[in-house]
Amino acid sequence: MATIVCPPHFSPVVDAESIKKACQGWGTDEKTIISILGHRNLFQRKLIRQAYQEIYHEDLIHQLKSELSGDFEKNICYLQRAICLWVLDPPERDAHLANLALQKPGLDYKVLVEIACMRSPEDLLAARRAYRCLYKRSLEEDLASRTTGDIRKLLVAMATAYKYDGEEVDEVLAQSEASILHDEIRGNAVDHEETISVLSTRSSVQLSAIFNSYKDIYGRSITKDLLKHPTNEYLSALRAAIRCIKNPNRYYAKVLRNAINTVGTDEDALTRVIVTRAEKDLKKITELYRKRNNVSLDQAIAKETSGDYKTFLLALLGHAEI
Amino acid sequence: MATIVCPPHFSPVVDAESIKKACQGWGTDEKTIISILGHRNLFQRKLIRQAYQEIYHEDLIHQLKSELSGDFEKNICYLQRAICLWVLDPPERDAHLANLALQKPGLDYKVLVEIACMRSPEDLLAARRAYRCLYKRSLEEDLASRTTGDIRKLLVAMATAYKYDGEEVDEVLAQSEASILHDEIRGNAVDHEETISVLSTRSSVQLSAIFNSYKDIYGRSITKDLLKHPTNEYLSALRAAIRCIKNPNRYYAKVLRNAINTVGTDEDALTRVIVTRAEKDLKKITELYRKRNNVSLDQAIAKETSGDYKTFLLALLGHAEI
Repeated sequence: MATIVCPPHFSPVVDAESIKKACQGWGTDEKTIISILGHRNLFQRKLIRQAYQEIYHEDLIHQLKSELSGDFEKNICYLQRAICLWVLDPPERDAHLANLALQKPGLDYKVLVEIACMRSPEDLLAARRAYRCLYKRSLEEDLASRTTGDIRKLLVAMATAYKYDGEEVDEVLAQSEASILHDEIRGNAVDHEETISVLSTRSSVQLSAIFNSYKDIYGRSITKDLLKHPTNEYLSALRAAIRCIKNPNRYYAKVLRNAINTVGTDEDALTRVIVTRAEKDLKKITELYRKRNNVSLDQAIAKETSGDYKTFLLALLGHAEI
Repeated sequence: MATIVCPPHFSPVVDAESIKKACQGWGTDEKTIISILGHRNLFQRKLIRQAYQEIYHEDLIHQLKSELSGDFEKNICYLQRAICLWVLDPPERDAHLANLALQKPGLDYKVLVEIACMRSPEDLLAARRAYRCLYKRSLEEDLASRTTGDIRKLLVAMATAYKYDGEEVDEVLAQSEASILHDEIRGNAVDHEETISVLSTRSSVQLSAIFNSYKDIYGRSITKDLLKHPTNEYLSALRAAIRCIKNPNRYYAKVLRNAINTVGTDEDALTRVIVTRAEKDLKKITELYRKRNNVSLDQAIAKETSGDYKTFLLALLGHAEI
């Protein structure tokens, strides 16, 4: 369930004009921008961006980027990135996040795993289409040329999948493939060819059945078994992928926990999860967060962030002020 | 360029009724069916199928399948398969061809290579979508579970690609990747990891540049170099994939030549190429065929086939009788 609170009636033209006004003059009126965009859903934001383009012949994203980046204050920078991500269409946003992750030194593979493993088949496809339009290369092309070895095999296979998303489960197949996964993972196979193939081709419900069979047959979860390996980047990515598929909400709650608890706070991760999930399952994620951390996500965020960036994240978390 | 000849004006209802009439009574009037469907383009066939469904509450494909298969004569069987393939929407047709290829004992990998390497990115995606709808599994899922080893890596990677299809070429990159391909192919590497990665992610025009660079630098084409290996199924598939990308028309002309020259004629291959290319580039393919074989494709087909099946193929090749 979504967390954001939006007015049932609104005028895209009035909103576009108010945002323009907030951007003009000496300094930017961030509060107005947040009070509008922090309380508009996907469809409403789309209409505002269209209205803005029609009235001012300028992309709202460009306007926000230039207005919110004039200041060197760190919080403004976080706010700008968060608002721009929020205004982007989800496929464009995923393409942008994937591209950023690919450019980071050392590659932010967790973002790529998130996008490849947790989007619906159609959403992943839409992100790949947006990536081609924006960067004039395919997502898998950049993935393949910026990674090597096992992590490349995993990421390319997951990102190019267009899985069946029906509800059918083949229990017998699940058991036999659980055993194949076990043989590779516990048998310290030279590579995880079959594991990657199963993960990247079987549907989500079939994979859940495989993970359940694994636990039933061997008495331990596949993610626990993976922990027994000496850690390397590929194995962390593989484990992240399995956790994303097994329980997306719990995975996101953990990403938020890590982002908040890390020294200095990981604002990129915090923004990414809040922005991408606010209209999807953020309510469920916040419940899991509170259960695991004995503190609400709102309180934790309020404590670790400040200024307009904090106000914006809390708006997406449902703090009304329509 | 297409070969089929279609009337500019037609009535889907009259056509549907004529086909129904041809199917009724003692025996089927194949000639009427061919004279209609052999001269209708994709859009016209779609409308006829719709009209047929609305008037008779039955899928035209099912009707044709049952009517044209009552006879045990081989030629009727070829005709039935050809007409049904022709009436299917191209994405459904590709999904059906891929599924058939996967079910053949020993796997008809060349059909899979054809579909994966020669469809446009959007057409390949449409075929994958149709496959999911028809078979309740993803194409890559079936590919992965019915193949193993290197051929699996190649086929899955090619079939899951959603390539960038712009015209930009990076010549420097082309040269460096030509050298990577050469190292793997001529150096007898244990696997072709980089080669498969390059083939399945780079755009068609970029791959052409890579193959050109290969020839410029090493003085031999990549396909010639692949011939120096002892032949196995994977290497033939790899070579087929490269030939498909390098020159699709020449590849198809060769498939037709093999289909016609093989003892007993390979009707499946003949039908597949004629049906899938008749509205695309069959004119170009027939020109190449004549140049290479000193006989026109029409003459060769007329010699090797017979009856209504021959009439239908020749109709798709443009023998008028509207």
